[in-house]
Amino acid sequence: MVSKNTIKRITSLSQKKYRNREGLFVAEGTKVIKELLNSSLELVMLYTVDDSAFAKALQHHSFEKLKQVSSLELKKITFLKTAQNAVAVFKIPEQKKIDRSGVTLVLDEVRDPGNLGTIIRLCDWFGISQLVCSIGTVDCYNPKVVQATMGSLTRVAVVYTDIEAYLLKEKRIVYGTFMDGENIYSSSLPNEAVIIMGNEANGISKEVESYVSERIAIPRFGKFQATESLNVATAAAITLSEFKR
Amino acid sequence: MVSKNTIKRITSLSQKKYRNREGLFVAEGTKVIKELLNSSLELVMLYTVDDSAFAKALQHHSFEKLKQVSSLELKKITFLKTAQNAVAVFKIPEQKKIDRSGVTLVLDEVRDPGNLGTIIRLCDWFGISQLVCSIGTVDCYNPKVVQATMGSLTRVAVVYTDIEAYLLKEKRIVYGTFMDGENIYSSSLPNEAVIIMGNEANGISKEVESYVSERIAIPRFGKFQATESLNVATAAAITLSEFKR
Repeated sequence: MVSKNTIKRITSLSQKKYRNREGLFVAEGTKVIKELLNSSLELVMLYTVDDSAFAKALQHHSFEKLKQVSSLELKKITFLKTAQNAVAVFKIPEQKKIDRSGVTLVLDEVRDPGNLGTIIRLCDWFGISQLVCSIGTVDCYNPKVVQATMGSLTRVAVVYTDIEAYLLKEKRIVYGTFMDGENIYSSSLPNEAVIIMGNEANGISKEVESYVSERIAIPRFGKFQATESLNVATAAAITLSEFKR
Repeated sequence: MVSKNTIKRITSLSQKKYRNREGLFVAEGTKVIKELLNSSLELVMLYTVDDSAFAKALQHHSFEKLKQVSSLELKKITFLKTAQNAVAVFKIPEQKKIDRSGVTLVLDEVRDPGNLGTIIRLCDWFGISQLVCSIGTVDCYNPKVVQATMGSLTRVAVVYTDIEAYLLKEKRIVYGTFMDGENIYSSSLPNEAVIIMGNEANGISKEVESYVSERIAIPRFGKFQATESLNVATAAAITLSEFKR
C-alpha cells in the first residue's frame, strides 16, 4: 500500500519548489530507471508493478527500497498520461564543480523541458561533459526533462549558475548563434570553446550577447524568407556537430 | 455565439478520423494562423478574441469567415492547455504530386508529433520541398504538428504514401542512417538523393532497409557506450546539414 501522504509527496515533486525542498526527483519507466540505478545516483524508493524487471538492476541497492504496487496505485503517483510500469524517487545529487576545458555548452533561458532533454542527450552523444544553464533555464529534474534525457542526465553535468558571472571569468573563445553571424560551415572552430544557445522566443539576451566574441550562423537554404529560425535543440545539434566533426 | 454542435465538430478535429472525414484541420495562435492565411490554404472559419490582430492578414479572405468570440468560448474549442487568442479551421489541401528531384526526406513510421513538426521546419530551412511519409507516420495535420511547424507546413509538401512502392521506383541514391553506417562526416554526399529516417524506437524497418544503398552514421563522440541513439529530429538536423553544407 502507498499511503495518501506518500502519494501527495511524490506528486508534489512535479514542482521545482518541492523538488528543491525535498532534494528529490522522479523518474519513470523501466528503461530510464534502470539507467539511473546504474549510475552514482542514490535511490530513495522504487514503486513497480513488476519487481522482476528490476532484479538485476537493484543488486547494489537495498531491497527495502523496492515496493511492489498495483496498477491503480501506480496510476496515482505517475506524472505521465499513461503510467509506465514503474516510478522511482531519487536524491538530487550535488551540483558538479565548474570545469573550464574542452567544449562547454551554455543555455541562456531555455524554457522547454523537451528541448533541454534533447540538448542533454546531444551533449552526451558529442562527449560534452558540462552543460551550464542560466538560473531561469528549465530545471533538469523536471519530470519531462528526466524522461526526455533517457539516462544521459547521469553522464552530463548540468550546472545552474549566473551565466554572466560565469562568462566574465571565461578565457576560452565564446561563440553565440545569431542570424547575422558568420557561416558556421566555413568558420574554423576550436577544440576549446564556449557555445551559447538562447531562449526559444528571444534568442540570446542582450546582457549575455556582450560576452560573445564570435557570432556564428547556420545558413538557411530554403528560398522562403518567412522560414522561422530553427528550434533551439536542432540548432544545438547542428552547431555541436560542426564543432566535433 | 459558437453553437454546441460547432464546438463538437471543431474539437473532433483533434482526431485523424474526423479530420479526414471533414477534410479540415485546426491551427491556433496569431503567429501560426497568420502564416497559414498568407498561403494558398483555404480558411473555413477563424475564431478570435481579438479580430484587430487579423485585420491585415484577412484582407484576401471573406470577412464572414471571422468570428469574434469570448475567452470562455475560445477555451471550449482550443486543443491547448492554455488557449491562445485564436483558433482557425482550414481545409486540408490536396496532396502534392511526387517530385523525384533534389534531396527528398522519407520518414518510416515517425510517431511523435513534435518530431514531425521539427522535421518539417528543418526541411523548410534546408530548402527540401518534399517530405515523403509512410502511411503509419503521424498525420501532419495533427494539431501538435501544426503548432510545432510554425507555418513551415505551407512551404513543404508532405506526401503520405506506401514508401516501399515509392522506393521501388526510385533512381536516386537511397541513404539510410544506421549505427554501423559509414561516417557521415567523411562520406561524399550528392545533391540528388533520398534520405530515410526511421521510427523513434525501432529505426528503419527491415522491409524499408532493403531499399537503402548507402548506410551512413553520425559518429558518437561521447566515451559512454550506454548513450542512447540521437532523437530522430536531431539526427535529421545533422544529416540534412551534412547534405547541404
